[in-house]
Amino acid sequence: MADNFCNVYLALIHFPVYNKNEEIISTSVTNLDIHDIARLARTYGLRQYFIVHPALKQQQLVQSVLDFWRLGYGASYNPDRSQALDLITIADSLLDVTKRIEAAEGVRPIIVSTGAKSSASSVSYPALRHQIANSRRPFLLLFGTGWGLPASIMAESTFIVEPIYGVSDFNHLAVRSAAAIILDRLLGSSWWDGSLSC
Amino acid sequence: MADNFCNVYLALIHFPVYNKNEEIISTSVTNLDIHDIARLARTYGLRQYFIVHPALKQQQLVQSVLDFWRLGYGASYNPDRSQALDLITIADSLLDVTKRIEAAEGVRPIIVSTGAKSSASSVSYPALRHQIANSRRPFLLLFGTGWGLPASIMAESTFIVEPIYGVSDFNHLAVRSAAAIILDRLLGSSWWDGSLSC
Repeated sequence: MADNFCNVYLALIHFPVYNKNEEIISTSVTNLDIHDIARLARTYGLRQYFIVHPALKQQQLVQSVLDFWRLGYGASYNPDRSQALDLITIADSLLDVTKRIEAAEGVRPIIVSTGAKSSASSVSYPALRHQIANSRRPFLLLFGTGWGLPASIMAESTFIVEPIYGVSDFNHLAVRSAAAIILDRLLGSSWWDGSLSC
Repeated sequence: MADNFCNVYLALIHFPVYNKNEEIISTSVTNLDIHDIARLARTYGLRQYFIVHPALKQQQLVQSVLDFWRLGYGASYNPDRSQALDLITIADSLLDVTKRIEAAEGVRPIIVSTGAKSSASSVSYPALRHQIANSRRPFLLLFGTGWGLPASIMAESTFIVEPIYGVSDFNHLAVRSAAAIILDRLLGSSWWDGSLSC
């Protein structure tokens, strides 16, 4: 694919998400979601990794982690982490994310939701990989914490990517694991034939 | 592939592993390595997930996590976790792991090391996927915590699987993320043509 334009953003949503009873809740940020997904974002060439939480206290917690690794002792101890964490932007809401992308790119992103439930309108990985590699518009991949993204967010998406199936009916993966697998499928060099997406 | 025998074990090594200066150290177990990799193991149909640490205190810490989710309040609150954690076995050493597999299977496992550095003898994902799907012997995938598996363990491996390359030269992934991507590549239904490994 000579003519390619991979231009992908990721947002990790802490509100609104479902709890196990499909009620809308907010979740707390976790240190390892910050680090693991930032390292994935850097590995797979994402433009930015948005951590979305409306609560100021939670945003400050993320900022303190970023400051430690980017400015404090962590920056000299482990500069690789700082490189990854530089991709993080803290945002209030999905609307805040899409506005920031539009401001940077001059065009609204194409929103892709992820989740563990299949849907009649799910798009396959090869089809979405092709779309991403050949579109001039930016893509925004959404991941939900807790029990996943609510219907209100799914409804704002252009695509819902198919769930990750292993070899069993068990698909309760950590959001960190799902992000790893989905980024590899959409943006990694194909493990099958070595071709690059972008 | 009608004739298939996927029979795969995973071990997460906490000793011996490298620190950032390539000195041999032991690392502490972390709660999320227990959970995230157990959920991956369940999703991708692994036989067992060995958590390897020689220190009794660390083994007890793992056991207390397992007890909470399998016997305590966690078992009723979230039965999916218990299903995943049932795959965990605590082991003292790599030798302990291979002996246990040999006792269960009647044959020694084929050992596959993973790591972030490429090697002249690295095997590709399609080649290893084919080997796993068509061998009657069990496979044991080794993942190192800290800065990775030492040369002494690499030397005991039949295969070293190629590192995960994204689109940049940055490949400092969390071991949890690497495990997710590698299991998906070796055992998942192919995202490319939907074929199953086993």
